[in-house]
Amino acid sequence: MRSTMMDAPLQVSRILEHGATVHGAAEVVTWTGAEPRRSTYADVGRDAARLAHALRAECGVTGDERVATFMWNNTEHLVAYFAVPSMGAVLHTLNIRLFPDQVTYIANHAEDRVVLVDATLIPLLAKSLGGMTSVRHVVVVGGGDPAPLLAAAGDRIAVHHWDALLADRPEVYDWPEVDERDAAALCYTSGTTGNPKGVAYSHRSIYLHSLQICMPEGFGLGPTDRELAIVPMFHAMSWGLPFAAFLSGASLVMPDRFLQAAPIAEMIAAERPTLAGAVPTIWTDLLAYLDSHDVDTSSLTEVIVGGSACPPSLMHAFDERHGIDVIHAWGMTEMSPLGSVSRPPAGASGDEAWRYRYTQGRVPAGVRARVVGPAGEPLPADGTSVGELEVRGPWITARYVGDDAPDPEKFRDGWLRTGDVGTLSADGYLTLTDRAKDVIKSGGEWISSVELENALMAHPAVLEACVVGVPDQRWDERPLATVVLREGASATPEELRDFLAGSVARWQLPERWAFVEAVPKTSVGKFDKKVVRSRYADGDLNVRELATP
Amino acid sequence: MRSTMMDAPLQVSRILEHGATVHGAAEVVTWTGAEPRRSTYADVGRDAARLAHALRAECGVTGDERVATFMWNNTEHLVAYFAVPSMGAVLHTLNIRLFPDQVTYIANHAEDRVVLVDATLIPLLAKSLGGMTSVRHVVVVGGGDPAPLLAAAGDRIAVHHWDALLADRPEVYDWPEVDERDAAALCYTSGTTGNPKGVAYSHRSIYLHSLQICMPEGFGLGPTDRELAIVPMFHAMSWGLPFAAFLSGASLVMPDRFLQAAPIAEMIAAERPTLAGAVPTIWTDLLAYLDSHDVDTSSLTEVIVGGSACPPSLMHAFDERHGIDVIHAWGMTEMSPLGSVSRPPAGASGDEAWRYRYTQGRVPAGVRARVVGPAGEPLPADGTSVGELEVRGPWITARYVGDDAPDPEKFRDGWLRTGDVGTLSADGYLTLTDRAKDVIKSGGEWISSVELENALMAHPAVLEACVVGVPDQRWDERPLATVVLREGASATPEELRDFLAGSVARWQLPERWAFVEAVPKTSVGKFDKKVVRSRYADGDLNVRELATP
Repeated sequence: MRSTMMDAPLQVSRILEHGATVHGAAEVVTWTGAEPRRSTYADVGRDAARLAHALRAECGVTGDERVATFMWNNTEHLVAYFAVPSMGAVLHTLNIRLFPDQVTYIANHAEDRVVLVDATLIPLLAKSLGGMTSVRHVVVVGGGDPAPLLAAAGDRIAVHHWDALLADRPEVYDWPEVDERDAAALCYTSGTTGNPKGVAYSHRSIYLHSLQICMPEGFGLGPTDRELAIVPMFHAMSWGLPFAAFLSGASLVMPDRFLQAAPIAEMIAAERPTLAGAVPTIWTDLLAYLDSHDVDTSSLTEVIVGGSACPPSLMHAFDERHGIDVIHAWGMTEMSPLGSVSRPPAGASGDEAWRYRYTQGRVPAGVRARVVGPAGEPLPADGTSVGELEVRGPWITARYVGDDAPDPEKFRDGWLRTGDVGTLSADGYLTLTDRAKDVIKSGGEWISSVELENALMAHPAVLEACVVGVPDQRWDERPLATVVLREGASATPEELRDFLAGSVARWQLPERWAFVEAVPKTSVGKFDKKVVRSRYADGDLNVRELATP
Repeated sequence: MRSTMMDAPLQVSRILEHGATVHGAAEVVTWTGAEPRRSTYADVGRDAARLAHALRAECGVTGDERVATFMWNNTEHLVAYFAVPSMGAVLHTLNIRLFPDQVTYIANHAEDRVVLVDATLIPLLAKSLGGMTSVRHVVVVGGGDPAPLLAAAGDRIAVHHWDALLADRPEVYDWPEVDERDAAALCYTSGTTGNPKGVAYSHRSIYLHSLQICMPEGFGLGPTDRELAIVPMFHAMSWGLPFAAFLSGASLVMPDRFLQAAPIAEMIAAERPTLAGAVPTIWTDLLAYLDSHDVDTSSLTEVIVGGSACPPSLMHAFDERHGIDVIHAWGMTEMSPLGSVSRPPAGASGDEAWRYRYTQGRVPAGVRARVVGPAGEPLPADGTSVGELEVRGPWITARYVGDDAPDPEKFRDGWLRTGDVGTLSADGYLTLTDRAKDVIKSGGEWISSVELENALMAHPAVLEACVVGVPDQRWDERPLATVVLREGASATPEELRDFLAGSVARWQLPERWAFVEAVPKTSVGKFDKKVVRSRYADGDLNVRELATP
């Protein structure tokens, strides 16, 4: 039986229209280092119409052409977030933190036609622009020397200025009705191995994800909120905060390029946000600043931490010293990005509530989650069965841009393989302990390398410990422990294994041990386990093998 | 460009699975007059699986067959709300308050195959059952004398008992993937004129509507809430509260048949709800009770009032005497039903906030609203232009069940004509003043009968005043004022018109006046304007016509 409901697509232009009218008085504030710039959502609505007219008339943007941004978090980036998808084109947020060659690769892969760039980022974009083969127009926002850009652009690329481009354009635009499953925005993963991979969000996925962000179980956004959006708008769609803000009427405070602790503290004191979202390092820096300066943070009741796991010490410090709840959220670019939010269940308090808050959090209805074993078999959601986490839902990608079929390394039977290993409890809380590639598969069972490392590093003689899986004839893989001792300290493999036996199951105890000068690290400071494994394979490590106890 | 997002339908079984696992510890409490019955959402999940198996195996329910309920708000009704749509069948909530003939008409129109009935409602259902031609199975919930039902059922209809039917069924069901635009549930409007008309909600519309209900701008439901759901589950899908509760983890308190003020007060004191939803008469009765009894209502911070306009005096009384915010919500069966919620905008306080709270409220992004003039032309959303309200969105019906095309009396160019007349402000607040059929169309302009009535009833000599439009050669229609004077009071038409001139535009002042003994009323106590108009047409009123001033 067919329903009698209207066929009204979920589309970004509806979020824009709603925010610009019903919440027209809500505010977007952009930090400048001096007097902040202020506009209303009604202003953003008018500028979005102007930008769409300009892109159509002057840059020839039609159909689903890609319009890229190379920008900080600011009002103009917000205008582009709404104008580009609303006109039916595709917003592509370029990550300014990637190597210039990667930026060029991504722009070419996405076939970007236009790039909007903050004037302060001209020198950086100039390094990538020359190689961008599909780009025909660059639009500069704000004042600055355009010379490097003009040099890189050559004859092929026209350079415009935002103010001139938008001047005298109509304040309204007849936004087209779109197919809600068409692409609205593109984001590429930073890709530690291989080339970056693109995810194309739909109007539908953005709309549904935004509703979830606003739910009390998500970030609980409403019209009385002011959201300090530190998480970059070029990173995983800024966690959907711009869209959620227009849906809910929450105002936005945008830091532009002022991401150091001092200006962030100043923004909090001056603009009185109720909520903020950023990666742990921002909060670590801010905490140190707040501890040594007198800053009024009384407006701020909650900060959302995502992007990587949040140290419990950071959560406790904000709670005890500043009365701010740090809420852990987990997600991926492939997931729009919201996967879970670590709010404790109703009724939990004290230590029990903290234990929930240390987890990656609880999944919403829009995210189905399961853990699967080594052969892909679903494991029980019992809080103890360890497996790879797989997810499924309307705002999760089914493949990467340009792939005809889902890559089996990343997708299985319609589920996204997150590459994270951990447990799922019956009440939907995720606890992630390892990356799947770092888990040691021993005799059909999984051993967490991170748990062994944490247990080893609790030994007073151990400075660092890196554990990897190495081939084993009998068990397929067994753990190899590489240990850096503290200066002047000494310990034998036997001693360390005995120490481990106090907290680790017997069959998980490593036989292979190597003492090293230092653990090799990746460019972002993580243990480089690939290098450790290849050194072992090459015989470059001085390994002692203990007898099975 | 196609998005890369997964094709994951929005469906009721996802809401059920989420509630029954992630929020499995949330509670549904059913009042019994004695010890309340308690279950968890995990229990509801298991019973929903059992019911689905039973309906398939014993009642032969397949495909999109209709399963009706004739029930109060209780746990079993909640189980049916989830089981029937989740299995792919269509839930049809029969309104127990309609005349038996109407119930029969509706069940036949919907082609119901099964009816679930509360034992306490057996005598009422027995009056309709004999005429139900498609029904083959009745399932009785709870204890009571089935004799009247068996007599009405005859040989054609099998009568089952809930407990026996569900016993020994599997606790899990492999819910099918559905087309999200297929019907999940049916509800018929009570229809003051003509036959009741059906609305078929889709899985998609229920899912989207539920998300909106949970938003802070909606009812702001989260896991720490306990929702006293007084609004009947046979009325406009219980405002979507059961679905929103499972999405958000809010617990549910169900009054069953105990809808009088005393048991409602007892439920509030004992079960400590944080939120409640009901029509104004429930709250009027409860207010009187609370004013004269010592009841602990401290858990209850907000009550949602809908179904008809909420008197400001009621809102103030709850606020001042009991510290409870009364929030006005507006909607229609045709709208799932949420149309607007009267939360004041950020920053409004005092009298300004109250003025917003008196309105029908602010529309969410899922509801596009416009007011149109007499010829259907859109009018500005400026808070002053008066027109008929039209709405559009994914949880609003496009037609009635069984109609091949939208009825032009009720739909225009893809918009639902609400039949309500009022204004829409630039920031999305609706103020509804009249039913469209009661508005007086005078010379291309609209005159609100309700505004004239309210202005007249402010005169000390006037007990009641009913104003209707009557035919006029020059202006098409002009207002006729019928007035009931207070006992012993006297006034002339001239005096009353002079009085009106103080608050009403000159061209709106009535020329035609009649003093009457009483205003004819409908069965629910509203002015019956149809009768007034026909009395005028028949020459049954003693009308004085004043000269144009």
